[in-house]
Amino acid sequence: MPRYALLVEYDGGPFSGWQRQKDQPSVQGAIEAALAKLEKRDHSIAAAGRTDAGVHARGQVAHCDMEKDWDPFRLSEALNFHLKPAPVAIRACALVSGDWHARFSAVERRYVFRLLMRRAPATLEAGQVWRVMNPLDVAAMREGAVHLVGHHDFTTFRSTICQAASPVKTMDEIRIEPAETGAGPEVHFFLRARSFLHNQVRSIVGTLERVGAGTWAPEDVKHALEARDRAACGPVCPPQGLYLDGVGYPDDPFA
Amino acid sequence: MPRYALLVEYDGGPFSGWQRQKDQPSVQGAIEAALAKLEKRDHSIAAAGRTDAGVHARGQVAHCDMEKDWDPFRLSEALNFHLKPAPVAIRACALVSGDWHARFSAVERRYVFRLLMRRAPATLEAGQVWRVMNPLDVAAMREGAVHLVGHHDFTTFRSTICQAASPVKTMDEIRIEPAETGAGPEVHFFLRARSFLHNQVRSIVGTLERVGAGTWAPEDVKHALEARDRAACGPVCPPQGLYLDGVGYPDDPFA
Repeated sequence: MPRYALLVEYDGGPFSGWQRQKDQPSVQGAIEAALAKLEKRDHSIAAAGRTDAGVHARGQVAHCDMEKDWDPFRLSEALNFHLKPAPVAIRACALVSGDWHARFSAVERRYVFRLLMRRAPATLEAGQVWRVMNPLDVAAMREGAVHLVGHHDFTTFRSTICQAASPVKTMDEIRIEPAETGAGPEVHFFLRARSFLHNQVRSIVGTLERVGAGTWAPEDVKHALEARDRAACGPVCPPQGLYLDGVGYPDDPFA
Repeated sequence: MPRYALLVEYDGGPFSGWQRQKDQPSVQGAIEAALAKLEKRDHSIAAAGRTDAGVHARGQVAHCDMEKDWDPFRLSEALNFHLKPAPVAIRACALVSGDWHARFSAVERRYVFRLLMRRAPATLEAGQVWRVMNPLDVAAMREGAVHLVGHHDFTTFRSTICQAASPVKTMDEIRIEPAETGAGPEVHFFLRARSFLHNQVRSIVGTLERVGAGTWAPEDVKHALEARDRAACGPVCPPQGLYLDGVGYPDDPFA
């Protein structure tokens, strides 16, 4: 059975998350239903990141096994046709070897978090940014983030239901950039690591927002990390500003 | 009665347009309903641009007359509260003189049109861009656009139901810029004029897209303009990529 890598974009708003659920719409379920229109049987696909409800993706990567030999471009076009009107799109498709795995072959995940600072509710960006009412101090947030980069025990910054074997992870980068968009001043957080713990990005961004607001000092982030205690974490921020932006592999299957 | 200028943002998707309609949701109707929660009576507001169904705004300007003296910030907050969950937001509010008029005092309108070039359907940008399947030649579109800048009879580029007294208008600027967004390569069209005819922006962008695709030569735009014949226009493009970006006044009421 030929295996295909899929580069997937979605608006996470209407879904209970990536993972297939009984009686709830999921991104995995939507793609598997589209695959069943092409080859009538049960399909089970794997993805690099199992995003939560409301979390979006620009560059999720999944793989599927097919019976027929599909031209990759035709496969992506056929899937996009059957995915309509769900807000899920296959941006690219590539034939990969049978031992290539969207999740286990991945060596890097990149997340972006969009935070909009304004009083007025979001309209065009509703569900796609986290709106906070007051301006944030980017320099202070950068100072706080420094403590989280590198090899650490992230017990403070993971969900109590996280199933990872170890809370020890290496955060390769946390970059925080002001951005001016049509909606007003935004702050974008770029996080990069081999892998993430459950709710790790939202726990970190929610904590850094407290630093930006002046409620926490930058060095409080260090103390929270060192506490290795979930209760020491700042508030977990909402999912709607979070995007799985890309996944890295030793060889980019879409290059 | 004190008069207030309102800077308004909206997602045009769920509305039949700016203008109040019987039995159809409109942006004007949504704001007037919110005003009626603050002062219980009929309200009738005026706006700088009467955008069509599906057209968005980042910087629409309207004005309203109130009985009470409202602090402008409190008025915008109260309106935003009552506008929920409609995707309409008051970004700013300012007290203006009684002879100031959102429409008649305006000396400039600025529109932006977002065009996304990719095969995959839009997901996060669904309803907010015009997606075309093939890449467009920006240089050719710029060459074509040159013919439309300046003082011209725009009969070719206005709707047959346009109610303006004259088809003669001055186009101050058509700027065409490639943009790289998370969704892929985009082209943004920036149009600026004292005022626009009905469907003028969409007629121009739809025609320039034909130039970008190579179906029209840049000089065909000149011939179309000179024909002064609606039938000589290219296809009118869809509304969902169009944004009323801003309105100019001799004195910016929100400055």
